[in-house]
Amino acid sequence: MSDNPLTAMGQAARDASFALLEQGSADKNALLLAIREQLLANQTEILAANAEDMAAAQASGLDAAMLDRLLLNEQRLAAICADIDTVIALPDPVGEELESRLLDSGMRLSRRRIPLGVVGVIYEARPNVTVDIAVLALKTGNAAILRGGKETIHSNRALLAAIHSALASQGLPTNAVQLIDSPDRALVSALLQLDQYVDMLIPRGGSGLHQLCKQQARMPVITGGIGICHMFVDKAAQLDKVTDLVINAKVQRPTVCNALDTLLVHAAVAEQVLPQLHRAMAANGVSLKACPQALPLLPSATAAGAEDFDQEWLGLTLGVKVVADVNDAINHIRAHSSEHSESILTDDLGTANRFIAAINSAAVYVNASTRFTDGSEFGLGAEVAVSTQKLHARGPMGLTALTTYKWLGQADYLARS
Amino acid sequence: MSDNPLTAMGQAARDASFALLEQGSADKNALLLAIREQLLANQTEILAANAEDMAAAQASGLDAAMLDRLLLNEQRLAAICADIDTVIALPDPVGEELESRLLDSGMRLSRRRIPLGVVGVIYEARPNVTVDIAVLALKTGNAAILRGGKETIHSNRALLAAIHSALASQGLPTNAVQLIDSPDRALVSALLQLDQYVDMLIPRGGSGLHQLCKQQARMPVITGGIGICHMFVDKAAQLDKVTDLVINAKVQRPTVCNALDTLLVHAAVAEQVLPQLHRAMAANGVSLKACPQALPLLPSATAAGAEDFDQEWLGLTLGVKVVADVNDAINHIRAHSSEHSESILTDDLGTANRFIAAINSAAVYVNASTRFTDGSEFGLGAEVAVSTQKLHARGPMGLTALTTYKWLGQADYLARS
Repeated sequence: MSDNPLTAMGQAARDASFALLEQGSADKNALLLAIREQLLANQTEILAANAEDMAAAQASGLDAAMLDRLLLNEQRLAAICADIDTVIALPDPVGEELESRLLDSGMRLSRRRIPLGVVGVIYEARPNVTVDIAVLALKTGNAAILRGGKETIHSNRALLAAIHSALASQGLPTNAVQLIDSPDRALVSALLQLDQYVDMLIPRGGSGLHQLCKQQARMPVITGGIGICHMFVDKAAQLDKVTDLVINAKVQRPTVCNALDTLLVHAAVAEQVLPQLHRAMAANGVSLKACPQALPLLPSATAAGAEDFDQEWLGLTLGVKVVADVNDAINHIRAHSSEHSESILTDDLGTANRFIAAINSAAVYVNASTRFTDGSEFGLGAEVAVSTQKLHARGPMGLTALTTYKWLGQADYLARS
Repeated sequence: MSDNPLTAMGQAARDASFALLEQGSADKNALLLAIREQLLANQTEILAANAEDMAAAQASGLDAAMLDRLLLNEQRLAAICADIDTVIALPDPVGEELESRLLDSGMRLSRRRIPLGVVGVIYEARPNVTVDIAVLALKTGNAAILRGGKETIHSNRALLAAIHSALASQGLPTNAVQLIDSPDRALVSALLQLDQYVDMLIPRGGSGLHQLCKQQARMPVITGGIGICHMFVDKAAQLDKVTDLVINAKVQRPTVCNALDTLLVHAAVAEQVLPQLHRAMAANGVSLKACPQALPLLPSATAAGAEDFDQEWLGLTLGVKVVADVNDAINHIRAHSSEHSESILTDDLGTANRFIAAINSAAVYVNASTRFTDGSEFGLGAEVAVSTQKLHARGPMGLTALTTYKWLGQADYLARS
């Protein structure tokens, strides 16, 4: 550990987390307001730094979608500030008493919600995430160590300067939010070894980053954000409503993790469902990859390869497979899902209940689009990440996912008998 | 993955977990009752197998404490069966609706408690743990992969045969509980790579095993069971009650993780507290390792080395340190604690609250022994492990720690707007 280049950063984060423990909800909201003010006060510097990142990114040939994610302007900075207002308005989960009981021994035993301590986040080249994570962490009394995409390095430094000004203005250690601001990939591995100081690591990114974290991280990691999502059209579905829901799930925002990847159709209704779906998909520019049974019903589709049903498409492609019944659909989903979001369309209650009982993905829908898996749709107010693992948090993670609890036992000089 | 020697075991466990999903609470209790019956029906075989383990352990020079943990006899088997009755009587957490809300979109959103899926447990040479873990896992609808200490291999095989008979008698796959029954250490590493099938890993053992899991495990791991526990005697403590509580925390069961390791004493009362403590500790055979300030007040103590305050003693040794005040005590605990259990003795409410606010160990006590950190003392009915990490579960883990949840969204063919 002692030769880890990030040890000092970890120690400083842990020390800062102790200072944050002393902050009440009002103090923390005042800090968030100060961050908002400092972002606006430093707008010129922040936008200039972002322009530098944009110029370098354009010169290096970054694609249009990534450039768009990288861009900051007055409007986007205003949107970031509006998001801070939203977080200020959320209730502070820290300090909540989760339960309290008087034990037979005479001890009053309670559970209280506390911050995690230090949160590490590795994320893509999106400067808004830098502010977002800092604000969510501070709202819940956590220190944060951030590692953003290397393309945003100047923007992130400028944003961090504003956050540090705000921390200092409230008499708090600036090390409460720290940035790993070297592009050296070895520092990612160093961060993953920092379990002595980092209580939870959130990797936001593709499966390569997730694999790296699974292999190297020594602290608890939240895996998620990768959705191979399914919709099963049962024979008892209202067939005139199927196409609209598939379009919504696939087309509304095809680049996100809750977009539909594979449509499963009950064999008894495939001949009714697939031709109308085919027209609608073609009109929306969706390419179809179909199983042998679906292929004749989808003239412009191509034959699906075996690996096509293990794809998170993140674009306008959809796998289509005809299945014998709900159990066949369940077996396909169990074999191919990333346990993010699955939906069944049916008016048969027994079939719906069979699907609900058998599918344990983070979000399971009956007669709804997979696109609903989202912190704001779920009313959580903010979204830290979408977890597809089973420990700690599952599905959209709100503020409480940045907390844990401790047991508190109070008694009158009580020995265990 | 494909060349992992445990892949088939993992797949079989996952398949069995799907069969367990179909079991209601009554089915699962019937299964537990069948296990109890099979253990008694196979008592002769089980005790004979255990005798084989005991003979080999004695021949290899295992110490008396380990031999005692290894031993099974009629009484101990009866106690194991009584523990099964206790678990049968506990409420089944699976299926519980944790919340339910009608969203503005018209969707009925709820959270339901579900099994984790497959639980892996690596544990010491204690045959009772084999039954214990199997029963807790099955009660919560989880499949289990077990790796017990190599000294218990014959006992574990015999116990597993009884469990398999019970599973078969209920029409369930015997792969719901599987044993890695080769002593080959490489299989531990193989288990740690089985993240595709194992949802949670619990290592029960010393810090070596925990380090191995942190380094190699690709699935979420519950770390815990290691307690460097502190008690701080404030100047406002009722001094006549201090000695009894220290004896309870240190002496009642010195080999367990919630036993006291370091006593911190406020400088203002050290001269009153330490001499009487010294007599009591000597009478109980406790060796003292004291800081320079405490040493003159504890004639038979030896000087504590720096590393003595980072020890989980697991025996009749106690570190003693004089501190300037509650903040000094907090700083010592933050630097040396494993975040298991800490206690303050004081009648000053402000000092107690300062301690409670600053110390975020899994269990924090005011005027009570650290020995209370225990699933049965906390009224959890059963204890899977004691977690000192911050994700998922903290402190004593009951049945709910073997579950997770899924979100369930039900609507009327609802698209996201």
